[in-house]
Amino acid sequence: MTQRVRVHCFNVSQDGIGAGEEQSLQHPFGLADPRELWAWAGATASWVNRTEPGGTWGLDDYITRDMTRKIGAEIMGRNKFGPFRGPWPNYEWQGWWGGEPPFHTPVFVLTHHVRPSLTLSDTTFHFLDTTPHEALKQAKAAADGRDVRIGGGVTTIREFLDADLIDEMHVAVAPVELGDGLRLWESPDELTDRYHLERVPSPSGVVHHFFWRR
Amino acid sequence: MTQRVRVHCFNVSQDGIGAGEEQSLQHPFGLADPRELWAWAGATASWVNRTEPGGTWGLDDYITRDMTRKIGAEIMGRNKFGPFRGPWPNYEWQGWWGGEPPFHTPVFVLTHHVRPSLTLSDTTFHFLDTTPHEALKQAKAAADGRDVRIGGGVTTIREFLDADLIDEMHVAVAPVELGDGLRLWESPDELTDRYHLERVPSPSGVVHHFFWRR
Repeated sequence: MTQRVRVHCFNVSQDGIGAGEEQSLQHPFGLADPRELWAWAGATASWVNRTEPGGTWGLDDYITRDMTRKIGAEIMGRNKFGPFRGPWPNYEWQGWWGGEPPFHTPVFVLTHHVRPSLTLSDTTFHFLDTTPHEALKQAKAAADGRDVRIGGGVTTIREFLDADLIDEMHVAVAPVELGDGLRLWESPDELTDRYHLERVPSPSGVVHHFFWRR
Repeated sequence: MTQRVRVHCFNVSQDGIGAGEEQSLQHPFGLADPRELWAWAGATASWVNRTEPGGTWGLDDYITRDMTRKIGAEIMGRNKFGPFRGPWPNYEWQGWWGGEPPFHTPVFVLTHHVRPSLTLSDTTFHFLDTTPHEALKQAKAAADGRDVRIGGGVTTIREFLDADLIDEMHVAVAPVELGDGLRLWESPDELTDRYHLERVPSPSGVVHHFFWRR
């Protein structure tokens, strides 16, 4: 099986915004209410961060249950790992996820400010100051034949799209307008020269956008 | 994790028919053209019987790629296993699937005419003359903590629905009318007293019906 490079369960507003401005420790998604973007995923039975029984088993759950299938590594931007910019004052920050991060694979964090690798349970974070191509090479080797997830945020996904390194992408478009923030696209149709695009409205209110290479 | 009892990728016509009358060796689906019911699944990249590269990676593929996830055993009716009725003249018939059946788990075949178990590659068929409850008990034990798929045909799914043993069910309704044959339902709404139901139209033309227990 070919190793694929996949984006899954990435969420944007109707105007294409995936996170607000002014990310901080209190506001991981900046000045945008992440509940408006993520509610559909949190309602499903299979959502990785679900802590209580219950949840839906319909269309949206097919999407969330697929997020970890055959994934052997993730690549993320520094701003998904934490709210800090510039050199690390120390290494106390260990990500948003506590002692049991939901990745369970090697995770490669792209940053101009590298630091030693960090292992929390069965997830190890590696910090790389390199190009998307080179990061992907390392992630593919670490994934041991499985696929690589490009985990976001917006800037990282844009870099990998611009370098034409993504094979398959799922983006849920939520029924809200945010106006300001980090923008994934002006319109998903920008990508249809390179990708097939299926738009599937969900009963939950989001519209799932499935892209795969032409 | 609770063991669940699931129906996946079962296909019916708009009038609820899953197979035609007069099943035979030449016509596994009886006097109905199975291509009309199955085309959506065969077009996907992840379809279990796909033999050539290619295929779609959109909504329909999310459904087909989920078919084998966490499945530890299947229960099927005798008519899914073969076109013969009554006592077995001999044991030459080994199912429709050749030497590499696509199940890769124990399969329990419900029949009034039992025969010795049959192993083909990593699939073993066991033949049981028993109730849905008892068959499920055996399949759950064999599934070793994983889920049990109720694989069809129509009669078997109806028996398990009537015994209230199914937790989750996906049925694709194809845009054809068949008129005669084995009928799963007059209308999917018959089940909404016991199940949530989401209807999701696919770009391929089928309407996916997702049921899960209330």
